[in-house]
Amino acid sequence: MRHSGRDFGQMREVRIDMDCIKHPMGSAMIAVGDTRVLCTCSVEDKVPPFLNHMNQGWITAEYGMLPGATNTRTAREAARGKQGGRTVEIQRLIGRSLRAIVNPSLLGTRTFLIDCDVLQADGGTRTASITGGFLALAAAIIKLMDKKLLPATPLRDYVAATSVGVIDGKPCLDLDYKEDSRAEVDMNLVMTGQGRYVEIQGTAEKSPFDLETLGKLQDLGAAGVRQLVEMQKERLAARIDLSRLFPK
Amino acid sequence: MRHSGRDFGQMREVRIDMDCIKHPMGSAMIAVGDTRVLCTCSVEDKVPPFLNHMNQGWITAEYGMLPGATNTRTAREAARGKQGGRTVEIQRLIGRSLRAIVNPSLLGTRTFLIDCDVLQADGGTRTASITGGFLALAAAIIKLMDKKLLPATPLRDYVAATSVGVIDGKPCLDLDYKEDSRAEVDMNLVMTGQGRYVEIQGTAEKSPFDLETLGKLQDLGAAGVRQLVEMQKERLAARIDLSRLFPK
Amino acid sequence: MRHSGRDFGQMREVRIDMDCIKHPMGSAMIAVGDTRVLCTCSVEDKVPPFLNHMNQGWITAEYGMLPGATNTRTAREAARGKQGGRTVEIQRLIGRSLRAIVNPSLLGTRTFLIDCDVLQADGGTRTASITGGFLALAAAIIKLMDKKLLPATPLRDYVAATSVGVIDGKPCLDLDYKEDSRAEVDMNLVMTGQGRYVEIQGTAEKSPFDLETLGKLQDLGAAGVRQLVEMQKERLAARIDLSRLFPK
Amino acid sequence: MRHSGRDFGQMREVRIDMDCIKHPMGSAMIAVGDTRVLCTCSVEDKVPPFLNHMNQGWITAEYGMLPGATNTRTAREAARGKQGGRTVEIQRLIGRSLRAIVNPSLLGTRTFLIDCDVLQADGGTRTASITGGFLALAAAIIKLMDKKLLPATPLRDYVAATSVGVIDGKPCLDLDYKEDSRAEVDMNLVMTGQGRYVEIQGTAEKSPFDLETLGKLQDLGAAGVRQLVEMQKERLAARIDLSRLFPK
Amino acid sequence: MRHSGRDFGQMREVRIDMDCIKHPMGSAMIAVGDTRVLCTCSVEDKVPPFLNHMNQGWITAEYGMLPGATNTRTAREAARGKQGGRTVEIQRLIGRSLRAIVNPSLLGTRTFLIDCDVLQADGGTRTASITGGFLALAAAIIKLMDKKLLPATPLRDYVAATSVGVIDGKPCLDLDYKEDSRAEVDMNLVMTGQGRYVEIQGTAEKSPFDLETLGKLQDLGAAGVRQLVEMQKERLAARIDLSRLFPK
Amino acid sequence: MRHSGRDFGQMREVRIDMDCIKHPMGSAMIAVGDTRVLCTCSVEDKVPPFLNHMNQGWITAEYGMLPGATNTRTAREAARGKQGGRTVEIQRLIGRSLRAIVNPSLLGTRTFLIDCDVLQADGGTRTASITGGFLALAAAIIKLMDKKLLPATPLRDYVAATSVGVIDGKPCLDLDYKEDSRAEVDMNLVMTGQGRYVEIQGTAEKSPFDLETLGKLQDLGAAGVRQLVEMQKERLAARIDLSRLFPK
Repeated sequence: MRHSGRDFGQMREVRIDMDCIKHPMGSAMIAVGDTRVLCTCSVEDKVPPFLNHMNQGWITAEYGMLPGATNTRTAREAARGKQGGRTVEIQRLIGRSLRAIVNPSLLGTRTFLIDCDVLQADGGTRTASITGGFLALAAAIIKLMDKKLLPATPLRDYVAATSVGVIDGKPCLDLDYKEDSRAEVDMNLVMTGQGRYVEIQGTAEKSPFDLETLGKLQDLGAAGVRQLVEMQKERLAARIDLSRLFPK
Repeated sequence: MRHSGRDFGQMREVRIDMDCIKHPMGSAMIAVGDTRVLCTCSVEDKVPPFLNHMNQGWITAEYGMLPGATNTRTAREAARGKQGGRTVEIQRLIGRSLRAIVNPSLLGTRTFLIDCDVLQADGGTRTASITGGFLALAAAIIKLMDKKLLPATPLRDYVAATSVGVIDGKPCLDLDYKEDSRAEVDMNLVMTGQGRYVEIQGTAEKSPFDLETLGKLQDLGAAGVRQLVEMQKERLAARIDLSRLFPK
Repeated sequence: MRHSGRDFGQMREVRIDMDCIKHPMGSAMIAVGDTRVLCTCSVEDKVPPFLNHMNQGWITAEYGMLPGATNTRTAREAARGKQGGRTVEIQRLIGRSLRAIVNPSLLGTRTFLIDCDVLQADGGTRTASITGGFLALAAAIIKLMDKKLLPATPLRDYVAATSVGVIDGKPCLDLDYKEDSRAEVDMNLVMTGQGRYVEIQGTAEKSPFDLETLGKLQDLGAAGVRQLVEMQKERLAARIDLSRLFPK
Repeated sequence: MRHSGRDFGQMREVRIDMDCIKHPMGSAMIAVGDTRVLCTCSVEDKVPPFLNHMNQGWITAEYGMLPGATNTRTAREAARGKQGGRTVEIQRLIGRSLRAIVNPSLLGTRTFLIDCDVLQADGGTRTASITGGFLALAAAIIKLMDKKLLPATPLRDYVAATSVGVIDGKPCLDLDYKEDSRAEVDMNLVMTGQGRYVEIQGTAEKSPFDLETLGKLQDLGAAGVRQLVEMQKERLAARIDLSRLFPK
Repeated sequence: MRHSGRDFGQMREVRIDMDCIKHPMGSAMIAVGDTRVLCTCSVEDKVPPFLNHMNQGWITAEYGMLPGATNTRTAREAARGKQGGRTVEIQRLIGRSLRAIVNPSLLGTRTFLIDCDVLQADGGTRTASITGGFLALAAAIIKLMDKKLLPATPLRDYVAATSVGVIDGKPCLDLDYKEDSRAEVDMNLVMTGQGRYVEIQGTAEKSPFDLETLGKLQDLGAAGVRQLVEMQKERLAARIDLSRLFPK
Repeated sequence: MRHSGRDFGQMREVRIDMDCIKHPMGSAMIAVGDTRVLCTCSVEDKVPPFLNHMNQGWITAEYGMLPGATNTRTAREAARGKQGGRTVEIQRLIGRSLRAIVNPSLLGTRTFLIDCDVLQADGGTRTASITGGFLALAAAIIKLMDKKLLPATPLRDYVAATSVGVIDGKPCLDLDYKEDSRAEVDMNLVMTGQGRYVEIQGTAEKSPFDLETLGKLQDLGAAGVRQLVEMQKERLAARIDLSRLFPK
């Protein structure tokens, strides 16, 4: 049994609060157990220089951790004068994941900036950021479609993410911080609504793992992502006819 | 009449959510109208070098703005590699304000770090940070007293802050962003529960003001702070016998 | 009595050396007691991006402290790689104060950069910077008027600043470093030649103060600023007919 | 057929030059096709603060790219004043990979710094850095064992890495730069001499992939790593009896 | 006798490997004894802002030291976030030296970036960088002439550099690291093929020297540079008819 | 004739104001023509880490330029966040020059920090900084000797510096900014009171020079330095018996 009483394949409770912040084009607060991430999507009518004259848009992400979010206070990156390696890695991952499920030529010459700020951390902040970041992006796209500023949906699929890992030799879904710290293997899976892989990142600093374990982790993770995508559908369906957002 | 329908001496609705975040020693989410600030208080068992061997504690504050908090997205200071002048000014103000109402020799050799992070901004973020930061500090102190880690309360008084300003020649209490942008005079008042001044910062970039106006603004602000202190008392009274927290 | 033998309402000796540096458009060395600040005004024929196409000029200030200016050597900010919070606060204050007394649409599309560099510090460097910075600005404006590059004076009034504070319960004018370090209340007043307030910044980290004290400090400071404005008039009158510089 | 004439499962030619640099404790120049990386291992007799008093060693890595290494010159990170996100990601990966195959308590209280500097880049610089970095580390360990400074080998296994990817729908081993730029899926595999996974990082920014493709890529990569480990064995066997370096 | 057995006027063995790197327009690996520097020349079709509309080109240099190049590992400047004073001094010297022997108006509106990266250091890295940097520049110019992109040679002369110094009162040519560390006087000479001075930098931190010593050092250095220029001629003659590269 | 009417071998007027600043241990304002540099010497009772337990002191220098010192305003290095290459080069030169004429084991375990800040620039700021920096250092040493904190003088000799250059083919002494900008050859000479060389730095970016020219420049510079040392002697003799400061 897991320390929280959860079953090995059981995800923590997920809560989503759409459009919780008034200024950005889209926003979503996502809670996965005690992990809480505020995701917002701001839209700018310009693209980075390398896309000039290419008639397409761009999606990028930034990630931050409030100092009080962690067990012992995390020093503010703005005060230290630079973003740490972990932050940079995570925000690159979020950006890649979201770009994988859009058609950039349907975004217009716009940049969608996804900000994922962790208010409270208890493991899985990067995967929660992807799942919530997708909702903030979708909310912004819905608003632009409502305003007739987007002729067609740029979305090709859903995307969500979860973590899996091996603890005391047992594959587990959705690790919390306590589990993550002692996992022998730690893997993040980013998958689409169609069940295809966008990213797979597995690390075994403590104990290299074999192909069989890899297979079990993939199965567990896929099941977790399916649940998250169901929640995304439900939330978005409350806002728009899903067939307009993801046409065949 | 003000654009929001408020009376000249009327404050926006204030909501306070105490101990909303689990890791820090104390926390408070404060909303003043659409301005929302998450204040947390972390405690470290050491003091800055200049206080070594002086047998007292220290209180310091940091302030941040989430990128999606503002009307048009604010660039992340961690990404730009440094904190802007406005941020530094505000966090110094919060720190001074909170230090003014404690007895440092009763804090123990501890540093209380107050983090004020603006989730949504609509004017008055620095004054809301002070009012909410005091509550996060008080919550941390209560927890330390509960654990018998503080022999006596280090608090000498309450502290709260509000803004006042002159708009179209009329003194107004608690400016929102729209009012703040067009105010002729803008003043922040930080005052104690006893009605004494901790900080007064008045600026008239557009139109220098006279002594009479200054007097009116002081009166309006004092009334506003009194209301805020009443709310602070109410919230803290739900947690502790106030006579233990502020003995005569 | 004060440690220097000065009376409570007595300012230190003020000396001003106009146009002491050859390259900038205007310059003034100001000494207030042992505090010495070199103020220069450079003029650039462009404005910051946020003023593009707005047909007006801009005034901004930078402040620095030579390493040898202070009692114990101050580390060079250029070597540390960033300007400290105190520096940023002061240069923002100087900029706001000078902008308050000009008509920006009469500056032309120019930026006036006021540099205030402290050669020797003994308290009151920020207020001396404002008083001297005004003279450097005025000297530059006179030179531009002499060259027929400014059709009309952009100046609306004089501006000068001084500090006041409470020491051992006594309100005092123009604190030197020794007094400043032990003051219970410390206040900076920036006022115009008409006696109106541009900025009032009062801080009571050690001991919150009441309305009566505030009133006394305001009176003392106003008297100090009046003396400084008289000196400014005298210096500028030696250079230009004052009615051309400040028309009715 | 691939543009280089290589077969889908064929690796580029690999050349290794051990102990090519005189000052560091160990070094290896590795060439994989036109990709050339100089790997050095320096040893310091101290550990990072978080390992103080824990009686174990640490391995960390840094990665750099010479400006002339790439097709169009890469700006020097030292001149830009910070390491980019890609650099940070890669050096964290190298460090994790090498730590995975050592017993830290047998390293002594030492830090092994692996520097991987790319002299010429043509795809696969991070995987070449891991394969070559292992050799530099092993060379340093051999030297310490020769000097009787290490009582027993801290190595538990070999580690090597290669990239695999999908190009025009075909899984390919060891992508060069031209292939990497147009791959639909790009995956890096870090595996041990025992064929176990240390890291698996697959990305499909352009086109999410299915489980079957993932399986094929894993097989191809495993075969590639086996070849690299054979080369590592051969090179190290020329320096030491392998049974001393990797005891049963 | 010198510790290496060399005669006082004897240079270390010099080896040069031209066009050793494939991407840059020109490259040369130079070894002077155990000092090894990789010099590359990249060409960009633009000039720095201060040369806009001046119809001429520019040559600039950057210098770096790989961490493993030195006796004890050198911290990576990219990781420390800035280039040290020594680095900046050296790259300015290399740039000046190479600009001294070209006709900038014959470079076209191009910038030639010379990167000198030290793979192994044993004294004289800056002078080796100049000697090798010239070869990388010449190789790039030859390539541009071959492609008919340069109508005439911009080269006016050769340039090479060496160090001289006083050790135990004896003038010596081409100091290695051990000698350099204990030299009483240390001088770098940059001279042209015609034997004229481009730079002379002599330093006597330990013991100021007289005019006679200066003369002896100049003679020794001039002889050293003559040998280096002979090697440069030989290498370039293998690539192009020298009369095309340096017309009368 | 030179544009200023000066003779080729004529130095500009030099003015020196000793002990002009009250806080540092020593100070000197030096003016060479329109170039004005404020030199201060602060003393700290500790040495840099590399001198720990070596029973000797250290001298180091920092150099700065006030924004208004130059013809067109120079951006503040503190605001740009780093010291430029030129600044770093100059402060290293000043430090080396002053260390060359002291006996470090007689400094005590102290660091002498020489700050040279240019208030007004017209060529030759680095050489004026050396000449003036020596006086600030000597003033500090005198004060320490007066206080019996130094048992014996650590000074071995005087040191001063000047520039020489070739303009229109003519060797000239002490170039002002206008001359410096168009000189074919530019050389700085740092020499001792005994007429020995501490540093010689000659640069010929525009036109390499021959041995004969070098000789003439050396003669001119030596004559200039002799004059400067005479002035130094005169100023210091007013403060102390020179035989105590520079014993045989």
